[in-house]
Amino acid sequence: MIGSELRSGLVRLAREEMIDFSRIWDPLPIHLHDAVGVEAGFGGITASGTYLMAVKHRLIYDFNLQHSVIASFGYDEVRFHAPGQAGDQLYLRLRWIEKRISKSRPGTGIAKHHCELTREDGVVLLSLYDTILMRCRQDHAAHAP
Amino acid sequence: MIGSELRSGLVRLAREEMIDFSRIWDPLPIHLHDAVGVEAGFGGITASGTYLMAVKHRLIYDFNLQHSVIASFGYDEVRFHAPGQAGDQLYLRLRWIEKRISKSRPGTGIAKHHCELTREDGVVLLSLYDTILMRCRQDHAAHAP
Repeated sequence: MIGSELRSGLVRLAREEMIDFSRIWDPLPIHLHDAVGVEAGFGGITASGTYLMAVKHRLIYDFNLQHSVIASFGYDEVRFHAPGQAGDQLYLRLRWIEKRISKSRPGTGIAKHHCELTREDGVVLLSLYDTILMRCRQDHAAHAP
Repeated sequence: MIGSELRSGLVRLAREEMIDFSRIWDPLPIHLHDAVGVEAGFGGITASGTYLMAVKHRLIYDFNLQHSVIASFGYDEVRFHAPGQAGDQLYLRLRWIEKRISKSRPGTGIAKHHCELTREDGVVLLSLYDTILMRCRQDHAAHAP
């Protein structure tokens, strides 16, 4: 599975959800008021990066990892490449780049993936590496040291 | 200001907000069901990492940067050190580690900070570096190339 690319379904950035989220978590004027977005050269409000992180995370569930994920150690090289805008259709591309059995925690492994929150036209809005502690599948556990 | 440490006010992780957030963005059983959290060795549900990222971002507003921030380029070394739990009192510690004038965009600068979402007892739950494009203050702009 290392190197193979997974793709989530499409999700549409809904204007009301973007604004509701930003009002609570990231009330920068450009995330709330169209006029500020237009002045900055966009069609209107832009999505908060924190909102894009949340959308990325929701799309992870398309890959059915929830039964094996224990916790994330953290993210590396989180990059906001382009702003999200209301109406954008987005999907998540995910590529596993590393998997190894944990030596200190029997029955678990450490896996790292790179994912890209991508607009329908191929433009990447957000990318990051995530390193995750996971339960091993039984067949893996049988071969663990 | 480089090196000096800023502290936000305290915020309390509210159980209902944690669950409502996780239900939408990160419905891992440990974020929704106390029994799963207890089985994993915690007092009950744990906070989603995505929720902690959002709490971190809301606390950034305590530092009144919203008039000078244009956008974040991204985060580095995002680390989830310990789980957040309902009732935790958290604050944000922020330290500017780099500031420079942008050569390509007049009137702007690039600033990097390290921040730690910290429990009242000093335990760090989340830490990261953030690199931000900012408007220069007038006195800075006067010295910009």
